[in-house]
Amino acid sequence: MTDILAQDNPLDALKALPAEELPRVAEELRGRIIATVAENGGHLASSLGVVELTIALHRVLDSPRDKIIWDVGHQAYAHKLLTGRAARFHTLRQLDGISGFPKRAESPHDCFDVGHSGTSISAALGMAAARDAAGSDEKIVAVIGDGSLTGGMAFEAINHAGHLKRNLIVILNDNEMSISPNVGALSAFMSRTMTSELFRRAKRETKEFLGHLPRFGKELLGLVQRAEHSLKGFLTPGMLFEAFGFEYVGPIDGHRLDDLKETLRNAIQLEGPVLIHILTKKGKGYGPAEKEPARFHGIGPFDPATGVSREVKGGPASYTGVFGRTLVELAENDQRIVAVTAAMPDGTGLQPFAERYPSRFFDVGIAEQHAVTFAAGMAVHGLRPVVAIYSSFMQRAYDSVIHDVCLQNLPVIFALDRGGLVGADGPTHHGSFDLSFLRPIPNLTVMAPRDEHELRRAMITALGHDGPFALRYPRGAGEGVALGAAVEPLAIGCGEKLRDGKDGVICAVGVGVSSALAAAALLESEGIELAVVDGRFIKPLDAELLVSEAVRTGRVITVEENALMGGFGSAVLECLAEREVNVPVLRVGLPDIFVEQGSQRELRRRYELDAKGLAEKMRTFLG
Amino acid sequence: MTDILAQDNPLDALKALPAEELPRVAEELRGRIIATVAENGGHLASSLGVVELTIALHRVLDSPRDKIIWDVGHQAYAHKLLTGRAARFHTLRQLDGISGFPKRAESPHDCFDVGHSGTSISAALGMAAARDAAGSDEKIVAVIGDGSLTGGMAFEAINHAGHLKRNLIVILNDNEMSISPNVGALSAFMSRTMTSELFRRAKRETKEFLGHLPRFGKELLGLVQRAEHSLKGFLTPGMLFEAFGFEYVGPIDGHRLDDLKETLRNAIQLEGPVLIHILTKKGKGYGPAEKEPARFHGIGPFDPATGVSREVKGGPASYTGVFGRTLVELAENDQRIVAVTAAMPDGTGLQPFAERYPSRFFDVGIAEQHAVTFAAGMAVHGLRPVVAIYSSFMQRAYDSVIHDVCLQNLPVIFALDRGGLVGADGPTHHGSFDLSFLRPIPNLTVMAPRDEHELRRAMITALGHDGPFALRYPRGAGEGVALGAAVEPLAIGCGEKLRDGKDGVICAVGVGVSSALAAAALLESEGIELAVVDGRFIKPLDAELLVSEAVRTGRVITVEENALMGGFGSAVLECLAEREVNVPVLRVGLPDIFVEQGSQRELRRRYELDAKGLAEKMRTFLG
Repeated sequence: MTDILAQDNPLDALKALPAEELPRVAEELRGRIIATVAENGGHLASSLGVVELTIALHRVLDSPRDKIIWDVGHQAYAHKLLTGRAARFHTLRQLDGISGFPKRAESPHDCFDVGHSGTSISAALGMAAARDAAGSDEKIVAVIGDGSLTGGMAFEAINHAGHLKRNLIVILNDNEMSISPNVGALSAFMSRTMTSELFRRAKRETKEFLGHLPRFGKELLGLVQRAEHSLKGFLTPGMLFEAFGFEYVGPIDGHRLDDLKETLRNAIQLEGPVLIHILTKKGKGYGPAEKEPARFHGIGPFDPATGVSREVKGGPASYTGVFGRTLVELAENDQRIVAVTAAMPDGTGLQPFAERYPSRFFDVGIAEQHAVTFAAGMAVHGLRPVVAIYSSFMQRAYDSVIHDVCLQNLPVIFALDRGGLVGADGPTHHGSFDLSFLRPIPNLTVMAPRDEHELRRAMITALGHDGPFALRYPRGAGEGVALGAAVEPLAIGCGEKLRDGKDGVICAVGVGVSSALAAAALLESEGIELAVVDGRFIKPLDAELLVSEAVRTGRVITVEENALMGGFGSAVLECLAEREVNVPVLRVGLPDIFVEQGSQRELRRRYELDAKGLAEKMRTFLG
Repeated sequence: MTDILAQDNPLDALKALPAEELPRVAEELRGRIIATVAENGGHLASSLGVVELTIALHRVLDSPRDKIIWDVGHQAYAHKLLTGRAARFHTLRQLDGISGFPKRAESPHDCFDVGHSGTSISAALGMAAARDAAGSDEKIVAVIGDGSLTGGMAFEAINHAGHLKRNLIVILNDNEMSISPNVGALSAFMSRTMTSELFRRAKRETKEFLGHLPRFGKELLGLVQRAEHSLKGFLTPGMLFEAFGFEYVGPIDGHRLDDLKETLRNAIQLEGPVLIHILTKKGKGYGPAEKEPARFHGIGPFDPATGVSREVKGGPASYTGVFGRTLVELAENDQRIVAVTAAMPDGTGLQPFAERYPSRFFDVGIAEQHAVTFAAGMAVHGLRPVVAIYSSFMQRAYDSVIHDVCLQNLPVIFALDRGGLVGADGPTHHGSFDLSFLRPIPNLTVMAPRDEHELRRAMITALGHDGPFALRYPRGAGEGVALGAAVEPLAIGCGEKLRDGKDGVICAVGVGVSSALAAAALLESEGIELAVVDGRFIKPLDAELLVSEAVRTGRVITVEENALMGGFGSAVLECLAEREVNVPVLRVGLPDIFVEQGSQRELRRRYELDAKGLAEKMRTFLG
């Protein structure tokens, strides 16, 4: 038999296969996924966990007429392979290649773009409403992990779905962990089983009792059965979803193809919203990933035979790592420091803090809004919460930042990792907007360190400041500068002149500073002498330094890895306009598009944010 | 006896009173609240509903040592009166007066600033964590309405609270409506009572059966009691909260002081999180408000004897009203139009649409994130959803706007009512930031009409545009312009020159246009001739018109009712810088502070956004 992924139309081929061939398809899919992720990096464990589910969905449903919405979407690799993208799958997550997430632009089988967690039920319900308005009858299925259910948006959608009563299937993919092991009462509740102690005892007692009873057996049986049904309801996750108006089915083994198909076939016959609860294993079918699902959640290239990462050790420390280690250090002598993560202790570098100070560490689940307001509550009472959330996920907590922290001028520190271009995760994950959306918030200080040592200084500065403070730093390795033990705080609102020059001044922040310095060095050889200022603070700006350099040199170039609209460069324009300094200003940053995936290096090249690109732009501007 | 509100320390006086005097205190509080709101306007119905609760809380707790966090906070009037603010209460919601919401700056008894819904449990849990870190033992109580529970953030907090198991009391104030009658499966679920048919039948059958049974009575009783307990659990809201790890108490009558006090005294003895479910009546004790709780939710001045509003009829139609009526009109011939509100059909003007097209209207609960992503799902399938959410509440849905709508370039229309200064609701409700936070989002068109007729034109324009479109308009009356039946669409990205002048050009948007015209007229009498351009589109800008006018007149003044940082004026600066037009620019807008409460007129005066203030600023700038 030919491999299914070599077929012109693998979906048709899949439907035509005898059922006994399906496990072989699962094996084929797993093989391709492991091989590709081993090469390119990617989200391995979640995609391996839903191979059988993906096969079952595509056997039972008629995609793209029927709709499958993958929550977050990093588990959709098998879906991509089965829907005509096998030939290009080797470009997964690469520049101009196949996206690591479903994308409507990529295939009609991807019916909704995803990336952040907890959006699938809302989108599916909207599609169901549109379908019913059109009088159509396609099936709509959202596949959501148990971790995403800790996010408030999923709850909002479930509440509304139970009210609207449209036909809709939600598949709860329960692997008992989100990215790191799940937290929250919901999680504890989900793991209660029907065979809990109370239920078993009640059943045993009932049987014993019935054995003694000659009369009234029938009435008693009825009563007991009702009681038993109710006890069952009380003890299973079904209770929760039934309470919200969903029909609950499960839990079923998410790796048993027959059960999955049969359950799906039954569920699509039901009226109203249905929740199918399946139990899966992250990393299923690949030993190393089954053993270390958190490491294999999002992973760089590795040796498929052993699972050992190919990442080169020994480069500069990452910003994430420096942040985490510095926080552990600072917390030793500052009991006010507590740390908050929204289900990402590893990704944000907080794991060492969690291990060292478990009682001062809070993982709130995938719940960014709550994370920030919870921190506000702690700050009111004298603690110094550090909330570490990726830049693009902080968009979820925007109102909490404004309304619960900054309005009260509370000393909460926002550690925004992944500011700027993140690389292969692409447009949903780039931290492209934070400088623009944080800047207008009163009371908030916004700072972007130029290297890992400045990050340490910024952290001390933030802890010494009696108000909200946002620190924004990039994904990946630092500049490789020495991390001296002595860390001096920074003066808030003060930049630093790093290089002199008479033909213009480059004002840069964050990762833009090193490129600016490199560009200035390139141009020097051409006789163009540019001063370089690290602005450091996006808010408050170092107006004095900027204005004096602008006046002195007569030309300003701003550099940032943020949307040009409303970002650091706009702050500089505002500052110059307010002081009536009318000099030409070139702003360099991200254009007004959703930037695609690609390595950070490739994207910086493409958008001329590297030294070469900057030099080119400046040459044109100056000459 | 002296009135309690005349005492120097009403809280001490309250504690010293014999219990039988408390109903009189309730009466006194209600009298003062009704009289003040009748004069100043305010949130009447919710504050009247919690008078007994407030008394009970302050009898049992020791505020400010113990903490009470009022969710949203518009129900805290009795709390304000009892905590030393009676003498200034006549300034409620007025410029420099007592806030309509709890404010830490106002009293140590206000322990957390609120205004938006669903933040109280998060804040309370943060305070509990800080308390435990300090080894202290104060009581922490969050009071939250049933409507706020439909918001995802409250759910995130409940999930985390059940996990953390700190001592914490949540009082669920269940009045079976949020602002308008509640929606969602949660609401249906909450209204199930312990006396539901199933429970009553089971109980009856059990009793009959037991009556027949001479032997095994004891064992049977045990079994039945367990069953009954379980049935009870299954049939009450308690089930839900117990599942999340809360101890559930209730429901109890929220107007019976003795029950409230006893329940509170018991609850503060319990370990871990406790939810007390109380049933109250909005508007309790004031006939007109009991009859029309939605009208008396937020109300302007009225005659306290009759409840009849004192609002002057016959002025210009409000933007809200024009929006609502226009949408009804347009939907007649455009079946793609559907409308979405987050629990505010009245406030957003969608009520007539809801009545006319019930199947095309969706009230999703206080769930802004879901509202937007639900709309995205509908837009994917060909509908044209109009999501009407107040500007400051849209901050809640920021990630949904970016990640679920704009990233996919979906034709969702955002109707942002209450853009700019809203008046008496103050800093939590001013729509001060929307132009700044929306502008950096790729694919999004952002427009602010200068009058109600332009709003109609903008709506047609948005419906004809195949991408996301944000319309931003102010609270209150329009300009009183004629609303012709024929409505021409606008060219996207085109402004309009409304007045000529040689000494400079004013570029304004939205409500700023009429003030700009008036200011230009004032200055004309002094010999200063300013052109006035309605920019209309914040994004995309009418660069051609702006540049040509800037070059022609040599001076630019921008006017907007939005934060100066990153707003329309910054867009103009960016545009001029990109085209290397180096002319002086004065930007007029909201300063970098959280603007206080006050009437729109007073605030526009104070911040020099009215004609007089603008003229003053321009005079200085020009000359």
